[in-house]
Amino acid sequence: MTSTTLLTGGLADRFKASLRLSAASVYLLASQDEDGLWHGMAVTSASSLSIDPPSMLAAVNRAASVHAVISQSRRFCLNLMTDRHSHLLERYAKSDLRDQRFTSDHWSARLQFAPTLLDALCTHTCLVEAAHDYGTHTVFFGKVEEVILSSDLRIGTGPLVWLNGAQASILIESPV
Amino acid sequence: MTSTTLLTGGLADRFKASLRLSAASVYLLASQDEDGLWHGMAVTSASSLSIDPPSMLAAVNRAASVHAVISQSRRFCLNLMTDRHSHLLERYAKSDLRDQRFTSDHWSARLQFAPTLLDALCTHTCLVEAAHDYGTHTVFFGKVEEVILSSDLRIGTGPLVWLNGAQASILIESPV
Repeated sequence: MTSTTLLTGGLADRFKASLRLSAASVYLLASQDEDGLWHGMAVTSASSLSIDPPSMLAAVNRAASVHAVISQSRRFCLNLMTDRHSHLLERYAKSDLRDQRFTSDHWSARLQFAPTLLDALCTHTCLVEAAHDYGTHTVFFGKVEEVILSSDLRIGTGPLVWLNGAQASILIESPV
Repeated sequence: MTSTTLLTGGLADRFKASLRLSAASVYLLASQDEDGLWHGMAVTSASSLSIDPPSMLAAVNRAASVHAVISQSRRFCLNLMTDRHSHLLERYAKSDLRDQRFTSDHWSARLQFAPTLLDALCTHTCLVEAAHDYGTHTVFFGKVEEVILSSDLRIGTGPLVWLNGAQASILIESPV
């Protein structure tokens, strides 16, 4: 992609190009259906919402399979991936690899309703208190019910970051 | 901050600690009031919302001065900072430096209603189509009306990223 292609094109093209320029942490968004099965996908559209009460939001495409699960269960879980999860990312980003998402030994059922990614930097389990549709997406507003923090925080461990259509490295310059 | 303090404490403390672990791009969120004056602040709570229509969201504390301006004008502008804006960040993060925010030569009025940060990686100007309150914040849903992309994209230019309470460096590993 060159500067020329970025600067020409219609609004939709320029908007898509602009999204490649922003760096965002990658979360595995997961939920549990009424049969106890787990569903999830990688998202960069999660963010903190409010400190009081502790809350997170996530914008989810209504075509994503996890959307219906969250809408029904009213619960979701956000697992902040680290750069040590790089090899796992593809299966949560491509729908044809969906069957591989929860077959590994990287998940725990230690929290009720919430699939927990082992070695995540942190995990938020959330109760959906509001959901607002816009365009192709729904924004879920989740009150945080539990926070799990990694017991293995150290210099050299950083969040997995998505930038320009690829994983990127980030340098933590002071102790976490 | 040690792992011990991260793992103990109440939910609110653990939630605040968890937010330090996520990396996010820093945007200057700005708006213009009815007298033509500009207001703005640095945020990490902005995210893409939907591709169709192109749209962005921003979670804004209702105590922030820009909140009332956006609520009245129904417009906001998100300027994605680069690591070359590092020296500017403090004035947009500390309320007692508010008077210094728009006095520099870093802003342009080239778009109507929207203060545009010069040399931003990209700028989105948005029309507020919905606003939802939750806790201390309002989430503004903005339909993107214009996208300005930097004409100076190159390897070595990256977004300004906030991680662990500080600016962080990010490596762009392929051409933008």
